[in-house]
Amino acid sequence: MSEQPKTSPSRARKARDVSQWHRETDIAIVGFGGAGGCAAIEAADAGSSVSIFELASASGGSTAMSSAEIYMGGSGGTRVQQACGFEDSTEAMVTYMMMSAGPQADEEKIRNYCENSDEHFQWLVDIGVPFKDSFHQERAIMCLTDDGLLYTGSEKAYPFAQQAKPCPRGHNLQVEGDNGGPLFMKIVTENVAKREAITVQYETRALTLIVDDEDRVVGLVIRQNQQEINVRAHQGVILCAGGFVMNDDMLRKYAPMLSAGTEPIGNPGDTGSGILMGLSVGGAAINMHEGFISLPYYPPANMTKGIVIDDKGQRFINEDVYHGRLGAFAVRQQSERIYFIVTVEQYGDYERVSYLGAQVAGTGETVAELEQELGLRQGTLQQTLAVYNEDCVNGEDTICHKAAEWLEPLQPPLVALDITPGRGAFVPYFTLGGLDTLPTGEVVNPNRQVIPGLYAAGRTACGVVRRAEGYSSGMSVGDATFSGRMAGKSAAAAQPH
Amino acid sequence: MSEQPKTSPSRARKARDVSQWHRETDIAIVGFGGAGGCAAIEAADAGSSVSIFELASASGGSTAMSSAEIYMGGSGGTRVQQACGFEDSTEAMVTYMMMSAGPQADEEKIRNYCENSDEHFQWLVDIGVPFKDSFHQERAIMCLTDDGLLYTGSEKAYPFAQQAKPCPRGHNLQVEGDNGGPLFMKIVTENVAKREAITVQYETRALTLIVDDEDRVVGLVIRQNQQEINVRAHQGVILCAGGFVMNDDMLRKYAPMLSAGTEPIGNPGDTGSGILMGLSVGGAAINMHEGFISLPYYPPANMTKGIVIDDKGQRFINEDVYHGRLGAFAVRQQSERIYFIVTVEQYGDYERVSYLGAQVAGTGETVAELEQELGLRQGTLQQTLAVYNEDCVNGEDTICHKAAEWLEPLQPPLVALDITPGRGAFVPYFTLGGLDTLPTGEVVNPNRQVIPGLYAAGRTACGVVRRAEGYSSGMSVGDATFSGRMAGKSAAAAQPH
Repeated sequence: MSEQPKTSPSRARKARDVSQWHRETDIAIVGFGGAGGCAAIEAADAGSSVSIFELASASGGSTAMSSAEIYMGGSGGTRVQQACGFEDSTEAMVTYMMMSAGPQADEEKIRNYCENSDEHFQWLVDIGVPFKDSFHQERAIMCLTDDGLLYTGSEKAYPFAQQAKPCPRGHNLQVEGDNGGPLFMKIVTENVAKREAITVQYETRALTLIVDDEDRVVGLVIRQNQQEINVRAHQGVILCAGGFVMNDDMLRKYAPMLSAGTEPIGNPGDTGSGILMGLSVGGAAINMHEGFISLPYYPPANMTKGIVIDDKGQRFINEDVYHGRLGAFAVRQQSERIYFIVTVEQYGDYERVSYLGAQVAGTGETVAELEQELGLRQGTLQQTLAVYNEDCVNGEDTICHKAAEWLEPLQPPLVALDITPGRGAFVPYFTLGGLDTLPTGEVVNPNRQVIPGLYAAGRTACGVVRRAEGYSSGMSVGDATFSGRMAGKSAAAAQPH
Repeated sequence: MSEQPKTSPSRARKARDVSQWHRETDIAIVGFGGAGGCAAIEAADAGSSVSIFELASASGGSTAMSSAEIYMGGSGGTRVQQACGFEDSTEAMVTYMMMSAGPQADEEKIRNYCENSDEHFQWLVDIGVPFKDSFHQERAIMCLTDDGLLYTGSEKAYPFAQQAKPCPRGHNLQVEGDNGGPLFMKIVTENVAKREAITVQYETRALTLIVDDEDRVVGLVIRQNQQEINVRAHQGVILCAGGFVMNDDMLRKYAPMLSAGTEPIGNPGDTGSGILMGLSVGGAAINMHEGFISLPYYPPANMTKGIVIDDKGQRFINEDVYHGRLGAFAVRQQSERIYFIVTVEQYGDYERVSYLGAQVAGTGETVAELEQELGLRQGTLQQTLAVYNEDCVNGEDTICHKAAEWLEPLQPPLVALDITPGRGAFVPYFTLGGLDTLPTGEVVNPNRQVIPGLYAAGRTACGVVRRAEGYSSGMSVGDATFSGRMAGKSAAAAQPH
């Protein structure tokens, strides 16, 4: 006999076992990050009463911890893109995002995202999110100025640039320093506060969903002050509880690739409880193996002029890709070491401004000397650099197709940084798998049948962004805020039960 | 309003909606392949009545389509290993299988498999499976002689051999030609037939599980002669319905890596219905992204003396690994082409006996000529071969660590085969994700709580073998037969309900 389990996200409660409904609302939202906040605003503006339940003592979620770049563009371009002289197109954006997502792309969802991207920009502006009409020229992971627009992905890099016309789509909030996330969540929280139809309950854990005999989600169990409270949600429950990067057991089972990472990116609530609740009522969790995993080797942008090699002394990736793509390819090589080779001059920049934390593995007044220090076979790195430097002179990287703007011969003395995951470098990671949803935010089962009454958004859902190798900064917050809005609107349009 | 769905594996039926139980049994088994057959024998031998429901018109499943090599060894070695002069150890076998499975390894399950491997061998012998006490020397994917033992994985290859003492563990049935699968299932089917406690119903589709109000699995709905029949299973249901390699929608959602494959390996019933049924009652499906995907480049074994290069003219893997490991690394490179470079002499052998089907992409009287034909940058392949040939002379592959026995300088004229997935070569694949189970075969939810009354085995479960890059022939049938037995025994020991 298995013992009777206590209330857990993995076991939904039956409505017939609920002796009392302690609270009622039209829409219950689990989690007050970017997705939950945007869902609440849309649902309230459509006339529903909304209750947000947040585990922490304040709003924010992982969105507040991020830079809150937002990936937007498409037809004609946003106001900022246009003001900065960039002409974007929906097709270019769709093509780029489809390549990014790979074979597991959800084309319907990507099209919906791209076709409504300009509208999303306007909605953000309308709730008070400030974007300055200025372009940030520098290659950066996050924008430390208040510029409104920058390249945040692999748009200009092989193989993307060859198939989709490059355009910058990373929209950065008008604020100095890396403060986009806190500002964004402050604005969202103020918008929530001024809507009377929304109530927010902090320090409240969502324990499990409640389903009726027809498997409709009709509410959820929350815990407040050590008491279990049954909440009736007449129009539905929206799960915006983040991903599962803080749940080691789930990571090992579902996303083993991320075990190469060193720093989970997320808030303590990212335990996968939202995904588990969805699974418990028959929702499908998809793309669970994928995540963002990165070797954040820039800034300085100058590092892009270096080369990355494996333990064979060979290059395997163009070094002008987004740092997540470089990370994804680094972890999948059969190689005991991965090195970043730079000149002493470039290393000086690196030492000043990088936060990669990679240690120096060797230096050399000559390439042969560096080769020896790294224990590489004699001649291998010499050959790699001879070819690379010749290609730089000719302006075409014939091996890995790095764009011409980054091609500059690497002259000794040289420095090798050990960027092997697990050898000291900072390797951030977070999850990209979650509940399968329609573009409306409705959660579906593995046959894509809708689970009535259940919605998901943000990293609890599997959104438009599906792979480290195709990630661009701004895609996750872009997806979280947009998918939150879709779910809020859909739930508010549902027939009350 | 969502319309009322018809009976589907993704929606379990409630016992309270069952107006009539048409049949009763102690244990219901879905699927009569290797897992289902072994489960039935064990359950019947433990005193339970068993009903097997098989979609096809005969027993067999994907086991009958396989070579039915069975991966066994461990402490002291099986009778065959010992007779052939090999001393195996449980620790060496555990180490190898843990490396094979990678970060997502289930150590408890692997230990149980390895520690009971010798007993499994004896059980198979006892039901009449013949193994000859002879060793097959040749490197082969499948054994075409009646020899009982051969190396079927990467045991002797880097990086495995450096950490786990190599030992052959692929046990081959005593039968000429590639006829192990049919013979194995003939023996299992005869064993089932002579047990009166087992009834087998062919041409019977399992539609969905039936659960009571406490979420215990108490039976299933089957369809026979276009009629839905409710079957009460007092001790439990064992899902042995194979994987999901024939379900394109599930492949795209869960295992996008396999989209590089050309030939699904499995029977038409491998639609994932068993996994979907488990999910519908809260079971966890794990490791769903992984599968076997292979470039079966040997036989001839001589191909192992060739080298594999990418579009940079570089090697990236030791060519003496199992063909599935080579396939897994081939699909994860950023490379538009993958070539196999062999001498004209080796190509002659290849043309005679290979079934890889890769086309000739270029030939060269000199390396420079071949380089040009392949459109490689001048000098790259020349450098790769210069290093390789020098290493061959020295007897140590300093680049990719191929074992010394395969090192022979490659002298022009040379031939390049295009083994890029999608360019004509045969790339077989099947799935390795499934329901999470305890070593007993009990299905668990994402919190590893047991779903009462539900068991799974074979490719419907996620077993000991978890990755293409660590696969060895015989691991899947080994796991299917062993896990089937565990599930049969556990269900037969369960309290009837």
